[in-house]
Amino acid sequence: MTDEMIAEPDLRDDDQPGLDNWRVDAIRAAIEAEDAARLNDLIEPLYAADIADLLEQISGGERRAFLRLSAREIDGDVLSELDESIREEVIEALPHDVLADAVRELDSDDVVDILEDLEEPQQEIILGALEDADRVAVQQAMAYPEYSAGRLMQRETVTAPEDWTVGQTIDHLRSIDWLPDQFYHVILVDPKMRPIGNVTLGRILSAKRATKLREICEEVFFTIKATEEEKEVAYLFNQYHLISMPVVDEADRLVGVITIDDAMNVLDEEHEEDILRLAGVGEGSLSDNWIETTKQRFPWLFVNLLTAILASGVISLFEGTISKIVALAVLMPIVASQGGNAATQGLAVAVRALATKSLTRSNALRVIWREIAQGVANGVMFAVIMGIIAYFWFGQPMIGVVIGMAMVINMFAAALAGLLIPLGLEKMGFDPALASGAFVTTVTDVVGFFSFLWLAGMILL
Amino acid sequence: MTDEMIAEPDLRDDDQPGLDNWRVDAIRAAIEAEDAARLNDLIEPLYAADIADLLEQISGGERRAFLRLSAREIDGDVLSELDESIREEVIEALPHDVLADAVRELDSDDVVDILEDLEEPQQEIILGALEDADRVAVQQAMAYPEYSAGRLMQRETVTAPEDWTVGQTIDHLRSIDWLPDQFYHVILVDPKMRPIGNVTLGRILSAKRATKLREICEEVFFTIKATEEEKEVAYLFNQYHLISMPVVDEADRLVGVITIDDAMNVLDEEHEEDILRLAGVGEGSLSDNWIETTKQRFPWLFVNLLTAILASGVISLFEGTISKIVALAVLMPIVASQGGNAATQGLAVAVRALATKSLTRSNALRVIWREIAQGVANGVMFAVIMGIIAYFWFGQPMIGVVIGMAMVINMFAAALAGLLIPLGLEKMGFDPALASGAFVTTVTDVVGFFSFLWLAGMILL
Repeated sequence: MTDEMIAEPDLRDDDQPGLDNWRVDAIRAAIEAEDAARLNDLIEPLYAADIADLLEQISGGERRAFLRLSAREIDGDVLSELDESIREEVIEALPHDVLADAVRELDSDDVVDILEDLEEPQQEIILGALEDADRVAVQQAMAYPEYSAGRLMQRETVTAPEDWTVGQTIDHLRSIDWLPDQFYHVILVDPKMRPIGNVTLGRILSAKRATKLREICEEVFFTIKATEEEKEVAYLFNQYHLISMPVVDEADRLVGVITIDDAMNVLDEEHEEDILRLAGVGEGSLSDNWIETTKQRFPWLFVNLLTAILASGVISLFEGTISKIVALAVLMPIVASQGGNAATQGLAVAVRALATKSLTRSNALRVIWREIAQGVANGVMFAVIMGIIAYFWFGQPMIGVVIGMAMVINMFAAALAGLLIPLGLEKMGFDPALASGAFVTTVTDVVGFFSFLWLAGMILL
Repeated sequence: MTDEMIAEPDLRDDDQPGLDNWRVDAIRAAIEAEDAARLNDLIEPLYAADIADLLEQISGGERRAFLRLSAREIDGDVLSELDESIREEVIEALPHDVLADAVRELDSDDVVDILEDLEEPQQEIILGALEDADRVAVQQAMAYPEYSAGRLMQRETVTAPEDWTVGQTIDHLRSIDWLPDQFYHVILVDPKMRPIGNVTLGRILSAKRATKLREICEEVFFTIKATEEEKEVAYLFNQYHLISMPVVDEADRLVGVITIDDAMNVLDEEHEEDILRLAGVGEGSLSDNWIETTKQRFPWLFVNLLTAILASGVISLFEGTISKIVALAVLMPIVASQGGNAATQGLAVAVRALATKSLTRSNALRVIWREIAQGVANGVMFAVIMGIIAYFWFGQPMIGVVIGMAMVINMFAAALAGLLIPLGLEKMGFDPALASGAFVTTVTDVVGFFSFLWLAGMILL
């Protein structure tokens, strides 16, 4: 330990909370020594998000020992922050009273977030630990569809009638004995409880007491239906720089509010989903063990195997040609690879553009045309480069011509596939990121192998 | 037009601002008719972010006509929202007085954001349009490094001495005649202007007047150095659910504040960068024309060509083997493709884990072991599947054994490459997303072709 402290003194800054390598090592040592007092000292300066990260980073055995030694350090916020892959395990290991205390201190939206990923018996335990009013609130939220605004919102709102003044509002806020932990707006509502505007607390504090709330409403104001997808929530917050947004029922009555920290979380999860889906990984977390990981990756690899066999089937059509000119077997992966790479580029741009709603009916045709133009332009450049290389490599000018022509054809196909496959998926209501590498590169493999080997057969034999 | 209105009546909901297909079509028609009055009517209900989206989605010609007809609709917020690829063009087209009005109404951080991407002469025009005090503030911010917290922060802060009470604070806030548009905390500072805590406006409004601010500070409190990277800012906001964070200079004195909407924007840009880099696209926007796009994509395609040639070089070592058994040429892309796909899966998981700081020294070894275990496990399963398929396809049992063995070897290599290449890049201070497809799949191409063809030569000949 002493060596480490000398070697990395800057990592031991107790003033700056957070999880650094020094602390993780020290905590693991304390766990191994079963030293609960030392462990608690080391955990003490950590925030909930850090304790959750810690539990995710240590091994399963260390985690069980930690929960035996310091279960009481796991509060509701830590449970909220935990990755769902280990949350279940942690909840099972917690003594009932600790679990009950933990969930009771949470807002209803956080309890819902935890419940969503649990099995029925564990859900029952948590619901049973809640007070009656909270349990009803949580059950009402669970009645909304998964990944909906209704699941994301907190039910505690701060409202004012539309004709109130700043003075009335301040007096009211100071008189009520309970306000949510985090709120940024007073929501103006009409007599039917329909939200009609947001007033920031900053403006309430700085305006004259006689000012009507309605005169100092935020210019940008949106409400969202509780049944709307959370993806749409994240989009609206990001697009319009919102801080909080009222959630309404089918009759436009206020039922809750979503704050930007929750929206940021959704945005982050959406991005994770896009990156993983584009790479053909459905889900997965670092805390999963190798068996879970193997199971998660197998399906996409199996799809890829089928598409690879399809491409091989194309090659097998030309076995006769290849047996006469073995150089073709050497060069054919280059055509396929360039096409695959070009298609992946277009795919990433398209998926991102669809996620930000910047690829629409208005510009789709122009973008398709642009992708084709750049595909052909890069195709021609690489045709020339690769044609010359192939000529010098194999000493046959015509082999350079064949690979050049195949390259242009495949880059054209790549441009179309990289854009049209995600666009088509979006149109059919699927996530365009599902167009992942495997599908799009099947097109470029098939077109690449076919055009190269067919042209070779026609021109060289 | 009438047809459209009947066909898509739900798209014409003027109560819900936002850009829908109906409105874009109507705007394009008004532009073509040079009907400025109609154009202004159609733009009127749009927010700044929507007008910016509109300008990005219409063609270059329509954009120029729009700016001729309705330049006055372009205010500072629209300029802020515009994609940098067309911002320059729009700024050049704006009359000087419109541009001056637009930038004068912006906060200093938004002006900095606009200036960053402009050429020198345009920077001069905008700086010249600012009032003296604002210009100095902007120039000070521009002195911080690009992509730093200093560039991101707003300089307008709301502070209170650490010994103030809630009552003093409220009286103070109500007495000063200027407060920032958006602020969520009063920052507690010591006599040397060092931030020591954040108090939310909600708590100020609900606490008793005699309460000391220091007693109702937020539990989670971070400051960040102005020279720190904006990526770190986004991480901290996301990790700790912050709403605003004070920015300090080298002596820990308060110099500004960053709010969550800016952090969310950075998080979104970081994600965009990751997705595009993983696909081998450095940058690029939908508004770029085909020549720019061709230039942007060429470098990575060129790198891919070199790596593809390397893989072909491996194949050419075995031309003799292939000429004797052409089936090898048919099957070899399957080995390479499965490896490439497996490596891409691991790569995406690693890049994402590094971005969220969940892959650290503490768990790196365990994750490496897990990746190897799942690589070998999936490798063995696909070896059996593909071995059987190859046996039936080509009628030779030993060709099934060869492809099976090569598959296991390549999936093992894929597991290592997908994880170690991004880890190595991170360690050397590069963005792990640069490990993009092209590099990682080079490993699996080379290992796949080599192991398959070499084993074939040893076993089958």
